[in-house]
Amino acid sequence: MTGAAYVGESRLETVPTDAVSPGPGELQIAVAYCGLCGTDLHIVHGDMDARVSTPLIFGHEMSGTVSALGTGVDGWAVGDPLTVMPLIWDGTCAACLDGNQHICQNLEFVGIDSPGALQQHWNVPASIAVRLPADLDLRTAALVEPVAVAVHDVRRSELQTGDRAVVLGGGPIGVLIATVARHAGARVLVAEVDAARRERIAALGFEVVDPAATDIVAEVERWTDGVGADVVFEVSGAAAAVRTLTALPKVRGTIVVVAIHGAPREIDLQRVFWRELRLLGARVYRRSDFDRATQLLRDGVIPSDALITGVVPLERTAAAIDDLTAGRAMKVLVDVAGGAA
Amino acid sequence: MTGAAYVGESRLETVPTDAVSPGPGELQIAVAYCGLCGTDLHIVHGDMDARVSTPLIFGHEMSGTVSALGTGVDGWAVGDPLTVMPLIWDGTCAACLDGNQHICQNLEFVGIDSPGALQQHWNVPASIAVRLPADLDLRTAALVEPVAVAVHDVRRSELQTGDRAVVLGGGPIGVLIATVARHAGARVLVAEVDAARRERIAALGFEVVDPAATDIVAEVERWTDGVGADVVFEVSGAAAAVRTLTALPKVRGTIVVVAIHGAPREIDLQRVFWRELRLLGARVYRRSDFDRATQLLRDGVIPSDALITGVVPLERTAAAIDDLTAGRAMKVLVDVAGGAA
Repeated sequence: MTGAAYVGESRLETVPTDAVSPGPGELQIAVAYCGLCGTDLHIVHGDMDARVSTPLIFGHEMSGTVSALGTGVDGWAVGDPLTVMPLIWDGTCAACLDGNQHICQNLEFVGIDSPGALQQHWNVPASIAVRLPADLDLRTAALVEPVAVAVHDVRRSELQTGDRAVVLGGGPIGVLIATVARHAGARVLVAEVDAARRERIAALGFEVVDPAATDIVAEVERWTDGVGADVVFEVSGAAAAVRTLTALPKVRGTIVVVAIHGAPREIDLQRVFWRELRLLGARVYRRSDFDRATQLLRDGVIPSDALITGVVPLERTAAAIDDLTAGRAMKVLVDVAGGAA
Repeated sequence: MTGAAYVGESRLETVPTDAVSPGPGELQIAVAYCGLCGTDLHIVHGDMDARVSTPLIFGHEMSGTVSALGTGVDGWAVGDPLTVMPLIWDGTCAACLDGNQHICQNLEFVGIDSPGALQQHWNVPASIAVRLPADLDLRTAALVEPVAVAVHDVRRSELQTGDRAVVLGGGPIGVLIATVARHAGARVLVAEVDAARRERIAALGFEVVDPAATDIVAEVERWTDGVGADVVFEVSGAAAAVRTLTALPKVRGTIVVVAIHGAPREIDLQRVFWRELRLLGARVYRRSDFDRATQLLRDGVIPSDALITGVVPLERTAAAIDDLTAGRAMKVLVDVAGGAA
C-alpha cells in the first residue's frame, strides 16, 4: 500500500505504507477520497517546514469507511461511512475552557501536525470521526471539511438574509463562502483576478469582478447604491486586497479575515475607526459547522460537480499540486482507495 | 468679546466676536469652559486643512449656561447649565436609518465643520444641547465630551467585569478609557512612552508600562498568565503600537481602534485569523454615552482634578496648544467666560 508524503525540501514522494491495527479508542479508516487544499500546497512548497515533521503523510479533506475498530470504541461498525474533523484540542487551555476548543492554544491539526489521509488505511481517534449519511456519495463527502470552513466563516460574519456580501478571492474556499452566503439569503459579488476562475464563478450564477482591472472600491460603492457592503470576506491572501479592504464595508459593516497572510499587511485603520467597522478572524470550524456542511452537501446546495475539477490517483498527487499552484484547477480530489488496486 | 480661531497655515489667532441672537430652534450659550483635545491640535497644526473652512472658531469640549433662547425652543430657561453633544446627522443616510446616527455618512461635527465653543456666546441647535445637573461644577462638566468618548469605547468593547484590559497610549482619552474600564470591573494595564505621563497614571492607581523600554507582548503575556488580554484599546496612534497590536489579545479577544491613524499601518493579520480576534472601530458617542459620562463625573468616578493640568484664559489658547503638543500637559481647559471680563 502507498501514501503521499511531504519529505522536506519542497518535495513530495509516494511512499509505502502499512495498515496498522487501530489502538484503543481509535478507528482504522479505509480512505476513499482526499481533497487537496491551500494548506497542503503550503506544506509541499516548504512554507510550513518549521511546523511539520517529515516525512509527513498529509491530507485532511477526506471521506472513507470504517475498516477496523480499536478496543473501547462504541457506536461504529466496519463499513460505516465517515469523515474526520481533523482537530485535537487539549481541553485545558484558556481558549478551550472558554468554549473555543476549535482554536485551542495548543491545537493539533491532524494531517499537518500528525499523519493525514493520503494513505489507504488511516488510524484516528474515534472522537474526531464524523458519521456521514448513507445517501451521500463519498466523492462529494470529501468536500465536507472545506464546506465546514465556509459555514464557519459565514456564521462568524453574522450575515443576514438580504445582505450584500463581497468575497475577495474566488478559489475553492471563496466559492464555497459565496455559495453558503447566497444560500443564507445574501446577494454576493466575487472578486477574482484569474479569468478562468471568473468564468467558472459566473457560470455558478454569481456576480463577479476582476479587482486587477476594476476600481473595486468604486464598484462596490456602485453595487451597494453608495452604502457599502454588509459583509466582506477576505479570502485572497493578497496585500493589494488588504490595502482597499476597509473601504468596502458600510458603516458598522463586517470584514471576515479567512485567508492566511504570511507577512504584515498595510491596512487603513482610519476607515475602521471612521465607519466603526468590525474585523473578525475566522479559522477552521466547530462540530456544528461540520454537521451543517454535511447537510448542505446532501441537500445539493453545494455545486460539488462544478467545484471538483479533477480526481487523480494517489501517484499523481504531485502533478495535481502543481496544477493547483498554477491555478489550473479548483478542487482536486485524490482517489486514495483507487490507488490501492 | 473674543474667540480663538484657526486662521489657516497652522496659525491660531484671538479674534473679535459678536453675540448673535439665536435663530429659530437655537440656544445662545454663555460658554464657561472649553477643553482642548487631540482633534483641536490636528486642526491648528494644519492636518485638517482640507476639511475645515477658515477662520474657524473651534472647540467642542465645553460647559456653559443658556444666555438666550430662539423662537420655538421649549424646555430651556436662561441660566440653565448645559453641555453640547457636537454631532449633527442628516437622519436620512443608510447609517442613520440603521440606527447609527452618531457616525452618519454626512456627519457635521460642530467645532470642526461649523463654529465651535471657543467664544463667549455660541449659538447651537437646541437639539444638540445636553442638560447638566445643577450640582456638577462647570469646570468638571467640560470633561463630559471626552468622558463620553471613553464610555463609548468601553461599551463598544463589551468588556466584562474581571476582564484584563490593556490601554495603549496614556493621554487624556487613554486615561479616561482606563478609568471607565476599571469602574466596569476590569484590571487595567496602561502602556505609555512618556515618563511624566506614566507617573501621573501610576498615581491614579493603574499598572503602567513603557512600551519603548519593554517587550510589551511578553509583558502582557506575563500579566495575563499566558492567556492574553481580554480587551486592548489602541489609543496611541503609533505605527509601532499597531505592529504588536494583534499579539496582545487572548483567543477571541477584542481590539478597539480609538486613535486616528493618518497613514496605512502594518498589521499582523495572521494573528487575527489564528486567534479569531475581533477588531472594532469606535468613534465619538451616542446620547446614552453622554448621559453616562455626566453621571460618572457627578459620582466622582473620573479623577477630573488630576486630569485637568491647566486652566488658561482664552488669549493663552495658542500657548496651551503648544504645551499639549509637547506632551507637557494632560487636559487643559480654556476659561472662556473669564476671558470676557
